[in-house]
Amino acid sequence: MENRITKLFSIKYPIIQGGMVWCSGWRLASAVSNNGGLGLLGAGSMHPETLIEHIQKMKIATDKPWGINLPLLYSEIDKLVDIIIDNSVKIVFTSAGNPMKFTQKLKDAGIIVTHVIANSKFATKCEDAGVDAIVAEGFEAGGHNGREETTTLTLIPTIKKTTNLPLIAAGGIATGSAMLACMILGADGVQMGSRFAISNESSAHESFKQLVTELKEGDTMLSLKKLAPVRLIKNEFYNKVNDAENKGASIEDLKALLGKGRAKKGIFEGDMTEGELEIGQIASIINDIKPVNVIMKEIIFEYQQTKDSLINNNKFSF
Amino acid sequence: MENRITKLFSIKYPIIQGGMVWCSGWRLASAVSNNGGLGLLGAGSMHPETLIEHIQKMKIATDKPWGINLPLLYSEIDKLVDIIIDNSVKIVFTSAGNPMKFTQKLKDAGIIVTHVIANSKFATKCEDAGVDAIVAEGFEAGGHNGREETTTLTLIPTIKKTTNLPLIAAGGIATGSAMLACMILGADGVQMGSRFAISNESSAHESFKQLVTELKEGDTMLSLKKLAPVRLIKNEFYNKVNDAENKGASIEDLKALLGKGRAKKGIFEGDMTEGELEIGQIASIINDIKPVNVIMKEIIFEYQQTKDSLINNNKFSF
Repeated sequence: MENRITKLFSIKYPIIQGGMVWCSGWRLASAVSNNGGLGLLGAGSMHPETLIEHIQKMKIATDKPWGINLPLLYSEIDKLVDIIIDNSVKIVFTSAGNPMKFTQKLKDAGIIVTHVIANSKFATKCEDAGVDAIVAEGFEAGGHNGREETTTLTLIPTIKKTTNLPLIAAGGIATGSAMLACMILGADGVQMGSRFAISNESSAHESFKQLVTELKEGDTMLSLKKLAPVRLIKNEFYNKVNDAENKGASIEDLKALLGKGRAKKGIFEGDMTEGELEIGQIASIINDIKPVNVIMKEIIFEYQQTKDSLINNNKFSF
Repeated sequence: MENRITKLFSIKYPIIQGGMVWCSGWRLASAVSNNGGLGLLGAGSMHPETLIEHIQKMKIATDKPWGINLPLLYSEIDKLVDIIIDNSVKIVFTSAGNPMKFTQKLKDAGIIVTHVIANSKFATKCEDAGVDAIVAEGFEAGGHNGREETTTLTLIPTIKKTTNLPLIAAGGIATGSAMLACMILGADGVQMGSRFAISNESSAHESFKQLVTELKEGDTMLSLKKLAPVRLIKNEFYNKVNDAENKGASIEDLKALLGKGRAKKGIFEGDMTEGELEIGQIASIINDIKPVNVIMKEIIFEYQQTKDSLINNNKFSF
């Protein structure tokens, strides 16, 4: 496949593994890259020294292209940017912030920069900042999320009308059919989070992976909207937040309720009751924990099969 | 095109025009049917005598298949069901309620019954009730909406795993590309609301149509969640509800705030400030008011063009 995303990153398949806190360390990211996609380290849950360790392990684990996801709201962000440049990382996905902030500095160091957005206003900002590609992430995505609540199906054509930058669709994509559907809507590639979070190579706790395989639709919900919207599994912690929100809780109330370290507690340490459990809506069709090479093969196979059926099946033809 | 939906309704294109309050009278529904889709009268905003009038006008305006959308929470529902049967209507789409309630009675009268759902639990109920087809409607849809907030991209494959009933995708679909994307996800056809609400033949007020053509993403939001979730344009009425909700308003507070007749006031009478303005998220890419025959031609053309590009473009091929 030759398109703007495979060429930009020099990868075989336009499948990006989303950088996810407490899930995507070097084991997951290198497995995705070794199987023809683009693996991303999730720097959002890494101390500077942990990031250095994962970069070093990545370089041993794969000779294929890979990158780092960098949430711009991270407290030690300047330190992480320097580490990335000093260690000659080639690809960075920035998120949760203004693309004007670091794009030029990263590009001056020869790094390919992609920025994650959830609305067309930021698509224009990305153009101004000079980023190389955009991830447009819909409401159904896990973890932190846009305030407009625009779904992937609506977001992709809207962004497409705003900018001609290479476009990666994210949110609600876990299969080859969904990948093809998003490319039909105008994306050049896809980013998948939840599917890879629930792989053998993900560093998430086994209890978290197991719980996700059992979720039905409606079992995740966008929460903490007054603070920073985040999609969570409806566990006891979520219920507490929801009760507080229904009673009109303030930003301060919610900050106090959230406290610190809840995502680690849940996703990494396996506290399914009090943890902040971030996963996408599409978890409802993820029913098994599999190795990355099997996941990649299944996605490619289904993509190809769906595309062939489109050509040969009169169900689709006028 | 021969598939389960075109065959079930004896229509040329598997494009259903969603039944919408204050938009889809006989003018809109007959135009859609005359152009090869399936037009639906929206009975949710009709008194019994108005429904009779529209049925009679429909019979004169088209000799093609057409139907009626019937929200089951309607106060005079028994009267409407009798009118539908007495007037030999052939197709009914029920929504907003339990499919067990009227399916058998309608089917005994020789009527094809489709039910609108937003989760897989109701897909199973539809099977038990013996409906002929399902509309699965995602979070991005305008008007009344499911509590699980499942988006179309996530909902279609989830429903597909639950039931083998003929499946119509709804929510976020206004173009031929989106139609093809949803069929790739497993739908046999699509239902479009917003696109047809903003047509010349729609009975919505010109001020409403004009406002919708100017919306950007984020300009609609799911509202009144404690009452019955409904997607609305963010106007002054919405802001009042939102402020009340942020302060923890009760169901009774919200009922009082909503009052009666607000959808009519907004959509039909053109009060853009105090009206309840129901439209889908995909309004962000609807920028013009056009006749139904042009809308239908453009959808079909784009569907075909997108499908052809998929076959001939190496951007899509491994």
